[in-house]
Amino acid sequence: MPEEWATFGTDLHLSISRPGVRVSLERALRTAVQDGRLRPGVRLPSSRSLASDLNVARNTVAEVYAQLAAEGWLTARRGSGTAVSAQVATSDGPAPEIPPYEQESLLPYDLRPGTPNVLAFPRGAWLSAARAALTNAPPDAFGYDHILGRPELRHALAEYLGRVRAVRTTPDRIVIAAGTVHSLSMLCTALKRRGASTIAFEAYGWHALVAAARMQGLRTVTINVDGAGARVDELYATNADAVLLTPAHQFPTGYALSAERRRAVAQWARATGGLIIEDDYDGEFRYDRQPVGALQELAPDRVAYLGTTSKSLAPGLRLAWAVLPADLVESVRKVKKATVWSSDAVQQLTLNEFIRSGAYDRHVRRSRLVYRRRRDRLVLARDHRAPDVPFTGTPAGLHVVMTLPDRLAAHTDDELCDLAASRGLAVHGLTTYRIAAGRDDHPSLVVGYGTPADHAFEPALDILFGLLAPR
Amino acid sequence: MPEEWATFGTDLHLSISRPGVRVSLERALRTAVQDGRLRPGVRLPSSRSLASDLNVARNTVAEVYAQLAAEGWLTARRGSGTAVSAQVATSDGPAPEIPPYEQESLLPYDLRPGTPNVLAFPRGAWLSAARAALTNAPPDAFGYDHILGRPELRHALAEYLGRVRAVRTTPDRIVIAAGTVHSLSMLCTALKRRGASTIAFEAYGWHALVAAARMQGLRTVTINVDGAGARVDELYATNADAVLLTPAHQFPTGYALSAERRRAVAQWARATGGLIIEDDYDGEFRYDRQPVGALQELAPDRVAYLGTTSKSLAPGLRLAWAVLPADLVESVRKVKKATVWSSDAVQQLTLNEFIRSGAYDRHVRRSRLVYRRRRDRLVLARDHRAPDVPFTGTPAGLHVVMTLPDRLAAHTDDELCDLAASRGLAVHGLTTYRIAAGRDDHPSLVVGYGTPADHAFEPALDILFGLLAPR
Repeated sequence: MPEEWATFGTDLHLSISRPGVRVSLERALRTAVQDGRLRPGVRLPSSRSLASDLNVARNTVAEVYAQLAAEGWLTARRGSGTAVSAQVATSDGPAPEIPPYEQESLLPYDLRPGTPNVLAFPRGAWLSAARAALTNAPPDAFGYDHILGRPELRHALAEYLGRVRAVRTTPDRIVIAAGTVHSLSMLCTALKRRGASTIAFEAYGWHALVAAARMQGLRTVTINVDGAGARVDELYATNADAVLLTPAHQFPTGYALSAERRRAVAQWARATGGLIIEDDYDGEFRYDRQPVGALQELAPDRVAYLGTTSKSLAPGLRLAWAVLPADLVESVRKVKKATVWSSDAVQQLTLNEFIRSGAYDRHVRRSRLVYRRRRDRLVLARDHRAPDVPFTGTPAGLHVVMTLPDRLAAHTDDELCDLAASRGLAVHGLTTYRIAAGRDDHPSLVVGYGTPADHAFEPALDILFGLLAPR
Repeated sequence: MPEEWATFGTDLHLSISRPGVRVSLERALRTAVQDGRLRPGVRLPSSRSLASDLNVARNTVAEVYAQLAAEGWLTARRGSGTAVSAQVATSDGPAPEIPPYEQESLLPYDLRPGTPNVLAFPRGAWLSAARAALTNAPPDAFGYDHILGRPELRHALAEYLGRVRAVRTTPDRIVIAAGTVHSLSMLCTALKRRGASTIAFEAYGWHALVAAARMQGLRTVTINVDGAGARVDELYATNADAVLLTPAHQFPTGYALSAERRRAVAQWARATGGLIIEDDYDGEFRYDRQPVGALQELAPDRVAYLGTTSKSLAPGLRLAWAVLPADLVESVRKVKKATVWSSDAVQQLTLNEFIRSGAYDRHVRRSRLVYRRRRDRLVLARDHRAPDVPFTGTPAGLHVVMTLPDRLAAHTDDELCDLAASRGLAVHGLTTYRIAAGRDDHPSLVVGYGTPADHAFEPALDILFGLLAPR
C-alpha cells in the first residue's frame, strides 16, 4: 500500500498546476531552492513519497529530481536520498549565523557569580527521571490542563520546601514558573492589576529582576543593605506595595537578614498591607551548622516565596516555583493563563520524579560538598596570598564579596576587572550589581566559585590572587 | 568518612539550640510535624546523616527518633527509614486536594475541538530524542544564554518551516515560546511598547488569545468571517495596529483565506503599517491534494507567523515558535528577557533531535493519516444518518462545523450540547467560539475528531448522530 508507505516519509510543501505537472514541479522546486525557502542541505522526500502526496507518477518526480541534480540544485546520494545541494547560492545569501553565546564569557576562566557548574548537571539521573515521567504520565498531562502546574509536582514541592526550607504551604498555593524572572513578572502583573504602583528592591541585586518589575509598569525604589541584611525600616518611607528581599543570603553582599529585621519586615507587611517577595535563590547552599530557614514561615499570608532549580540544578531547565499567599493564587492563575497558559508537563513530571526518588536531595548534598570545598580553597588562598582582603558572604551560596584594601585603592573595581580580563579571567565588581544610584565607598569584587569546571578552578584563583596579592 | 556518606542522604531544616541538644531536637521535630511543615508520609534523614548535619552524636538523633516514634509522630520501618506518621493530625488539617482536572470533560466521550489525541503522544520516540539531547547538549545549554531560543532548534525550524509551510525565514528571526498564547502575549507587549493600542480578531476564534491581548492592555475589535475566510476589507475601518488571522483553516469555521484576500491583507499591512499575526495552529493537517501555504510568504516583513506543537504533538509540551519580521526581533527579545528569560533548553534540544531525526515528519504524517480516516468516517456517518447536515472545514484540521438544519431549529446550539452531555458526549456549539457580540443565524456545532481515544470515536459518533438524525 503506497499510501501507508508514504506515512513514514517527509513533508514538503509545493504548489503545482495541472496539466504540465512535470514543468510545474521542476519550476516549483527550483524556485524554492533559489529563493532560499529550501535551505542548502535540507533533505527532500523520496520520489515515491512525494509522488503519492502530489498524486503524480513516481517517474515524473524521479525525472525532475535527476534534472535538478544535473543542474547542481540537488544532490542524490545512494542510501541517503535527495537533498538540496550544500553549495547552492540562494538569493538570500547564506543563513546568518546565530552567535553561539550571548552572555558567556569568551575568557578561559570565569569567576562571575550566578551560575552553578553546568558541567556537573546530572544528565544520567535526569534522563532516568524523564524516562519514569514519560512512562508514568497520565494522558491528561499531554493536554491543556493545570494552569498553575502539575499536581504531582506541587505536592512534591510542598513536602520538600516544608522539610528543607521550613516553608509553610499546601500544594494548592504553589505555582510553577519558568524561572525567578517569570515568578516575579507574574506577581508584578497581578499586583499592578490590584492597583499597586511601587516595588522596593535591595540596593544591590540582580538587574534582571528590576527590569522584570519595570516591564510590568511598576515604579522601582531601593532600600539600603548593611551587615544585618536589608534596611527594612526604610520601607515605611518608600510607600512601596511590595519588596523583593534575599533574606537567606543577600545577593550579592552575602549577609543574612537578622532575626530582628525578619520580625520587623513581617510587621511592616502586616501594618501596610505590603507584600514581601522572598527570593530564596540559593537557600540550599549553606555550609555552617546553623541553618537559616525561609522568612516565609513568619508570615505565610504576607510572603510570596520564590524558589528555583537555577542554582541547585541548572538555569537552562527554566524550572522554578512561587509559594503564594492564599489571596494571590487566583490572580496569579489568571495572569499565567493569559500570558503563557500552563507549564511543560514533561519537565514538571521529570522534576517530580527527580525529587521523589531522592535524586534531588542527593544532587544538592553532593553539590554542597563540592562548593563548600571550593569556598574553603578560596578562603585558604586568600589567607596565604592576600590576608588583608576581607570576605563577606562566606557561610552560604556560590559567591563571596571581597573588599579591596587601601593598597589597591588606585583602582576602581571596573579597572581591576579589566585587568583580570586581560589575564583571561572574567570577574565582576560590586558596581555591576548596584541597583541604587550612587557610588560605593569601598571598591569590591563579587567572586563566584560555582561556575568553573573543576580543572579550571585553581588556575582561576591563581590569576585572581596574582592581582590581589601585595607586590 | 561519615561526611562523604552523608552526601547521599536527605536534607532537613531544623533549628536547635545548645546546650540541651536532645530536648531541643525533640521539640523542633515535634513542632515541625504538629504544625504541618513536615507533612504525613515525609521521609526523614537517617540518624547518621542528620547527626552529621547538626554536628550532634548519632545516638542523640536515634533516641529522639525512637521517642517520637513511641509517641506516634514518626514511624520507623526496617529498610525504609524513618518517616512522619501517615496518621498524624496536624494543626492545618490534611493538605487540600488539588482538583485533578481543571478543564477536562468528566463525560466519557469528547468531540470538542482543539486537542489532539493525547493517547497517541509518541512517548518512546520522545524519550529517544531526549536521550540524544541530553547526551549531545553542549554545557552552555544548561546556563543562562540564548533568550530567543537554542540556535540548534531555530536552525531546524527555519529549515522545517521553509520546507513544509513555505515560510520564508532565517533562524535569527525565530523566537521559541511556551505556546501560541505566549507568542501572542510577547508580540502584544512589544506592540504596546511601540504605541499600538488596538488589535483585530476574527469574529470567531479562541477566547484565550483575546484574553492574552487584553492582559497586555490592548483594545480588541473584530472583523467578520465568511466562506472565503476573514473579511480583511473591514480592517481599514477598525484602525487596528495588528490583526490575528487563521488563514490556512479559520478557527473554528474551517474556511481557508482566499488568494484574493491574502493579497488584500498584505496590501492593508503595507498601506497602514499594520502587523499580520498568522496563527498557523493546525497547518500540518491538510488532507486534500492542493496545499495551502503560509500567508507569511507573501509579506515576510509584515507577518509574524505563529506555529506550535500543540496540535502536531501535544499541548502539554508548551513548545511553540514565532517567526518575526526583522524589525520586531529585538523588541520581542527584550520582552521575553524581562518576563520569562529564556526557554527550557532540554525540551528545545529534544524537539531539535525529534525534527532532525525525521521523527517529527513521521509522527505528523502518521497522525494525518489517522485524522483523515476519522474525518472520512465522520463524513460517512453524516451521509448515512443525517445527510441534510452540511459540514464546513472538512479539507483540513481536526474539526468540522455542522450547520443544524431547520428541523432542529427548535434548539439553540447550547441546548443541543446540553442534550449531548446528558447522553455522555461533550461537544461545543459555535457560540462558544464567538468573539464578536451578537447571535448566529444558524445554530451550529463545532465537532472535533482529534481528541477521542481510538476505541471511543465510533461510540461518540453514535451519540452525536443519534441527536442529529431525523426521527
